[in-house]
Amino acid sequence: MRRFALVVVSCLAISLYPGPSPRAAALEPDQRQELTQWVATHGDDILEELTAFLRLPNVSADRENIAANARALQAMWERRGAQVRLLPGDGGPYVFVHLPAQGPATAAPPLTVLFYAHYDGQPVDPARWRVTPPFQPKLVGAPDDPESRIYARSASDDKSPIIAMAAAVDALAALGLTRNVDAKFIFDPEEEVGSPHLEATLAGHAGLLAADLLIFADGPVYPTGAPTVVFGTRGIITVEITVYGPAEPVHSGHYGNWAPNPAEKLARLLSSMKDAQGHVLVDGFYDQVRPLSAGEKRALARVPPVEDELRRRLLIARPDGGGRSLQELINLPSLNVRGLNSGWVGAEARTIVPATATAAIDLRLVRDIVPEDQVDLIRAHARRLGFFVVMDEPDAATRRRHPLVARITQGAGTRAARTPMDTPLSQAIIKAVRRAAGFEPVLLPTLGGTGPLSRFEDLLGLPTYGVPMVNSDNNQHAPDENLRLGNLWDGILLYASLLRFPAVTPAP
Amino acid sequence: MRRFALVVVSCLAISLYPGPSPRAAALEPDQRQELTQWVATHGDDILEELTAFLRLPNVSADRENIAANARALQAMWERRGAQVRLLPGDGGPYVFVHLPAQGPATAAPPLTVLFYAHYDGQPVDPARWRVTPPFQPKLVGAPDDPESRIYARSASDDKSPIIAMAAAVDALAALGLTRNVDAKFIFDPEEEVGSPHLEATLAGHAGLLAADLLIFADGPVYPTGAPTVVFGTRGIITVEITVYGPAEPVHSGHYGNWAPNPAEKLARLLSSMKDAQGHVLVDGFYDQVRPLSAGEKRALARVPPVEDELRRRLLIARPDGGGRSLQELINLPSLNVRGLNSGWVGAEARTIVPATATAAIDLRLVRDIVPEDQVDLIRAHARRLGFFVVMDEPDAATRRRHPLVARITQGAGTRAARTPMDTPLSQAIIKAVRRAAGFEPVLLPTLGGTGPLSRFEDLLGLPTYGVPMVNSDNNQHAPDENLRLGNLWDGILLYASLLRFPAVTPAP
Repeated sequence: MRRFALVVVSCLAISLYPGPSPRAAALEPDQRQELTQWVATHGDDILEELTAFLRLPNVSADRENIAANARALQAMWERRGAQVRLLPGDGGPYVFVHLPAQGPATAAPPLTVLFYAHYDGQPVDPARWRVTPPFQPKLVGAPDDPESRIYARSASDDKSPIIAMAAAVDALAALGLTRNVDAKFIFDPEEEVGSPHLEATLAGHAGLLAADLLIFADGPVYPTGAPTVVFGTRGIITVEITVYGPAEPVHSGHYGNWAPNPAEKLARLLSSMKDAQGHVLVDGFYDQVRPLSAGEKRALARVPPVEDELRRRLLIARPDGGGRSLQELINLPSLNVRGLNSGWVGAEARTIVPATATAAIDLRLVRDIVPEDQVDLIRAHARRLGFFVVMDEPDAATRRRHPLVARITQGAGTRAARTPMDTPLSQAIIKAVRRAAGFEPVLLPTLGGTGPLSRFEDLLGLPTYGVPMVNSDNNQHAPDENLRLGNLWDGILLYASLLRFPAVTPAP
Repeated sequence: MRRFALVVVSCLAISLYPGPSPRAAALEPDQRQELTQWVATHGDDILEELTAFLRLPNVSADRENIAANARALQAMWERRGAQVRLLPGDGGPYVFVHLPAQGPATAAPPLTVLFYAHYDGQPVDPARWRVTPPFQPKLVGAPDDPESRIYARSASDDKSPIIAMAAAVDALAALGLTRNVDAKFIFDPEEEVGSPHLEATLAGHAGLLAADLLIFADGPVYPTGAPTVVFGTRGIITVEITVYGPAEPVHSGHYGNWAPNPAEKLARLLSSMKDAQGHVLVDGFYDQVRPLSAGEKRALARVPPVEDELRRRLLIARPDGGGRSLQELINLPSLNVRGLNSGWVGAEARTIVPATATAAIDLRLVRDIVPEDQVDLIRAHARRLGFFVVMDEPDAATRRRHPLVARITQGAGTRAARTPMDTPLSQAIIKAVRRAAGFEPVLLPTLGGTGPLSRFEDLLGLPTYGVPMVNSDNNQHAPDENLRLGNLWDGILLYASLLRFPAVTPAP
């Protein structure tokens, strides 16, 4: 962890300790009022800037339009006096933006906050968009109604946070409120395809991107709509298991009962991995888990439950997990069979013993689990069940020699991240969000999904925080993606509050 | 069982018992020699008739060409003095052919033998045929080499047995050898699509088709190439099991560990149905099985083993069945998972908890098992494991109420057939085949596959026998289907021998 200096809530105060610190005061209640008023007055301009940005098609693979988006970002931030650099990459340019801290210099350097968002979007199938074509943004409802929505690809995921950040800069400037942090922004051109060049970009520009913390501005707020601070994300590693039967599909009449059936052997293997409540039975599966701290447990207990509504909507009579809450379960690693394939079903079904059976699995990881280790546990489990485990397609000799052969391969792993909630910096972030919203945020030790947080931690040494702003029912990745207007207005205050960072007070 | 008269081996002998009987002597060794000679002399004409027939495309769904095949069959058999009737059906005409017994009338009516073959073929993908296009028959090898092969769709399955029957009639006539049975033939236009109108045809023409036994002339001889008599076929009923998870696929990060995973629940259900050796653990699964008689067990023990060769070719280190032979296992019912599907695997894999998981299963049946009863055992098994079993797509209320829901549906069932080997008629058939081949045939109590034998048994009350002639490596249903010439020549003797049926001698 990095050291953080104690700073009194005044732009003139001298830090008692050396080290990075916010230079100026955080958002005060009356300033929140002023900002709200400013946003209300300038809503039309903000919407105009957002819709112009949404009109640029931004499917990750569409390099020409991705480049146009990068140029638009450059212009957007240069208008605000920022230094902008396009960091070239094979998937399009990462856009780096720098806005130094304002106000008089202090003995300690200002706190440096690196904001992350992405400007690419998921592929679109225009035929399935009912409200408006994906790159023709449309406001549904009155502009002054916070329940109105803007429909367009990336309206939520993830262009609106970028616009909210820019508007926050404008608002603070208009109201004469100085930014007390050195603000850096990195905008990703290929998050929706897994950010394959993010690591190289972070590693190649570590000096440029050096900061004291990362604010991750992607994903929705908690389903209740409450402001949300996310302290981590689950990691992931994907696994594929193929079990082998006869060399080719054979007639189930002539060979059924005799030719070993790979679908059945796979079913046996899979069902040995979890009990009926979904608890993973693979030896060592939970061994690397870093237990939740008392503070994290308290935070979990305060998260508003959404299970009943989810059960009603998803038609779930009894969730897995033996009665534990969704948030408790998200703070444990998971083993999820995301796909099964063998032979044919339905109208294509044929009377054969299949030659192979495949299960696609994803392992979600929590803090401290090494992704590849978790796959090795799966392999060891398969071996204990009698499988001969291979990494490549087994040759004929291998299949003739071993009654049970399983090919177990893995994808690239992403570690989980989980920043402790009780550090001075974490407490300051919570305070910034609380001040922006005017009430207590939901604190999530770990978001269920996986993001690139751990890469910033690993490559830049940053504590990472997710501070999302968009509505959770935004149809992310789907047709009719949308942004609730109220979330945009709230988001501006949120990022303004982070640009006037609260004092980072060391624990007593 | 029907009664069968004792007949001495002479066309002049008077049956000692009333009842149907062959009128004339069976094939004697010297006559076998004459027939072999005749076939050798007339091979070119026979091949010409076969290739002309193979040139007619005969994919079941191609009604126009199926009709052309029916007209060709009519002409083929009318040339031989047979009465021919096309029995109309929605899938094309069943072609009925009648050749009354020859020779002087006897006190007892002649034995009536109904021969079954089909004249439709499997669909073709001409791009995958390497030797010749599917409807341009090509002889590879010298015409006088029994190892030569004719390549074409239906060269083996199932046009060549029809040509062999016609040639057998010609040969007997040319050599002045009378047919001692009333010979009826029924040629099926839609066997390759499951003969959906066979039952209606049999039921609607029961008088026309009345006979004392059925000879089923489809399928290959035993893989060793030995002449083969099949006394039955396994039945079949297909089952599809769908297990339900969340109403729609949900994000495996946000809901993994909490949303019940249907692929895992299905794996648990499937793996509970069989042990690691493939023995079915479903209660009552083997209860209806009619045990093999001592004679059938003896016959099984004499079947030449093919397991080592199969294991080598199919890359099987250890077959299911706990060491029992393939033939023993074929005489037991099977439960085969022929397909699995849930979510996505491979390049399409997505990080979701799937909404459903489906297993396609076929249950092969042996003598006396009622197909639908076997499916009910599966349902009862699922209920014992806690599943709420439904027949139709479950509604939202059902899914909200029951933690485990499985939809278990079934296809139309076909019963197994197994004619006892020790009846006088069975012994006479074995003798006919032995005399045609000159050596001992392989006797299979039950063929692994499923045929329509039980329908003839159920609707016409016939004991049924399979007397195949084509080579087992004929690429049936695949590109480059072919017939080994030696099998054609042998087949002519085989059907000639059945048209000069041995005496049916009652058991002492």
